[in-house]
Amino acid sequence: MTDKPSNGRNIELGPGKEFDLVRTLLAEWGKSAQRIGDDAAVLEVPPGQRLVVTTDTSVEGVHFRREWLNHFEIGYRATAASLSDLAAMGARPIGVVIALTLPEADRHEARELAIGIRDGALAVMCPIVGGDLSSGKVLSLTITALGSVARPLSRAGAKVGDRVYVTGVLGGPAAAVRAWEAAREPTERDRARFAHPIPRVDAAIGLAARGASSAIDISDGLTADLAHVAAASKVRIQIDADRIPHVDGVSAMEAAGAGEEYEIVVTAPNIDTRRFTEEFGLELTEIGRVVAGPPAVELSQAGIRVSAPDGFDHFR
Amino acid sequence: MTDKPSNGRNIELGPGKEFDLVRTLLAEWGKSAQRIGDDAAVLEVPPGQRLVVTTDTSVEGVHFRREWLNHFEIGYRATAASLSDLAAMGARPIGVVIALTLPEADRHEARELAIGIRDGALAVMCPIVGGDLSSGKVLSLTITALGSVARPLSRAGAKVGDRVYVTGVLGGPAAAVRAWEAAREPTERDRARFAHPIPRVDAAIGLAARGASSAIDISDGLTADLAHVAAASKVRIQIDADRIPHVDGVSAMEAAGAGEEYEIVVTAPNIDTRRFTEEFGLELTEIGRVVAGPPAVELSQAGIRVSAPDGFDHFR
Repeated sequence: MTDKPSNGRNIELGPGKEFDLVRTLLAEWGKSAQRIGDDAAVLEVPPGQRLVVTTDTSVEGVHFRREWLNHFEIGYRATAASLSDLAAMGARPIGVVIALTLPEADRHEARELAIGIRDGALAVMCPIVGGDLSSGKVLSLTITALGSVARPLSRAGAKVGDRVYVTGVLGGPAAAVRAWEAAREPTERDRARFAHPIPRVDAAIGLAARGASSAIDISDGLTADLAHVAAASKVRIQIDADRIPHVDGVSAMEAAGAGEEYEIVVTAPNIDTRRFTEEFGLELTEIGRVVAGPPAVELSQAGIRVSAPDGFDHFR
Repeated sequence: MTDKPSNGRNIELGPGKEFDLVRTLLAEWGKSAQRIGDDAAVLEVPPGQRLVVTTDTSVEGVHFRREWLNHFEIGYRATAASLSDLAAMGARPIGVVIALTLPEADRHEARELAIGIRDGALAVMCPIVGGDLSSGKVLSLTITALGSVARPLSRAGAKVGDRVYVTGVLGGPAAAVRAWEAAREPTERDRARFAHPIPRVDAAIGLAARGASSAIDISDGLTADLAHVAAASKVRIQIDADRIPHVDGVSAMEAAGAGEEYEIVVTAPNIDTRRFTEEFGLELTEIGRVVAGPPAVELSQAGIRVSAPDGFDHFR
């Protein structure tokens, strides 16, 4: 950061190999990196808006495998995953800060990682405003995304009588993982949904404008994440599995349980899904209803109640 | 986060062991944890102020060793280190977000870690507003600190003719590390300076009010961090090693090179150090001058020019 932030330039760093590596990252980030180099970044929150902040860690062997993703994709996906949480709040991004733990063996891939991070942020026009670089044995990225919004969407706003809508078509990441686990190469479309998710920023802002009462992104799985909405909003959520939009080769039930989607699920009184899709170039599907009752998600298929699949749990 | 943020309460989480662990952390954080549980935290930046954000990672084996610190201290120190970067901008904290990668073996210590994080934030009256919890093989904490300030201090503001001031007494962390490396127990005072640094938030705000033109925290070492100020401000900085305040058992030159201090060094036209110390209960020492010339730090001892020690570099 500089004391003249209006020019958006980065300030000079001192000598050292760590700072040489930072300079390498900055060279790749180009105009995406703004005012990096002070102890902290300085940003403006537009008047009348509130700050939204979220942090998300991607650890080698936990959130990704080197055999599946190249370094560009690792950087892109970690950045997009964090920005997806901002989208779920209906917020517009104002910056990301990048904490990177880089093993010796990955140092020559720092440039590819940097390009992936840049492109993940550029997908939603977000600058990179700061970061921290550490050595370590395990490749790990913690991306903190900052945004602003006048009225944030929350998990806690779902109302009895609302309908439930989901963006996109689910199951692509699950299909990609299944292919990799069977030592097959996934289809380009499934691989892209896993490796290059697009944070649904514009769509979520559009859904908020159309009366969305709650929102969450599907990073742990549709039914698992809706369980958070049910708990936070103190409502019961009924999902019709037959209506869940899913890719070929993945069942509706698998799509209901699969995480890593980075699509958005919202509750709202009534949204014209066809017009939404025309406007945003993105599928929007009504998949269920909010009813009164003990907080939980009820899943049914062909009219028969079925057990909701569990979400991803790091500590099961 | 809730859609009624004014009450400051956390919202209900869904079921699962990961969320049980989050509930354990929240129980320890008590009122320090505010409005956690949505995809992102929502904060207010006071009108007329700018947002300041910084992120800092502490990795087991790189930034700390389990033999040296208990889990309370690991949590405290990581949090204080990040908040120290905010202090160096003259900012007042408004929240921290905590990304925690927790190996299986550390799960029973999560409570101690949580208490340390809480106390590190409480030291500067900062709430914990969000986070992310991952499993992984290596214990790692990435703490992102958010603050606000009307006019941030920068590394880039040092002016020819300014004097150089440092808070506190240096060398305690170096003495503690030296003791541990010799398999001795450090003195309580040296250990405390390593394990429980106090982010110099009030002091830095006080220094800004007294005309400080630039500031940086000494996490990589006094001369190494001043080299960043010199580079960013395009000035030469002359330090008189004999004036560097240091603990017994550590030489002035060692104190000049030792990192992990979390004290603040500022440049300013003229500050009454005695009055500052009375008001803040914290030493402030004039140690040098800003002069014209190629950007660098010049260190002298007994009037003779000596080489400045290198700072800590993760990638040397």
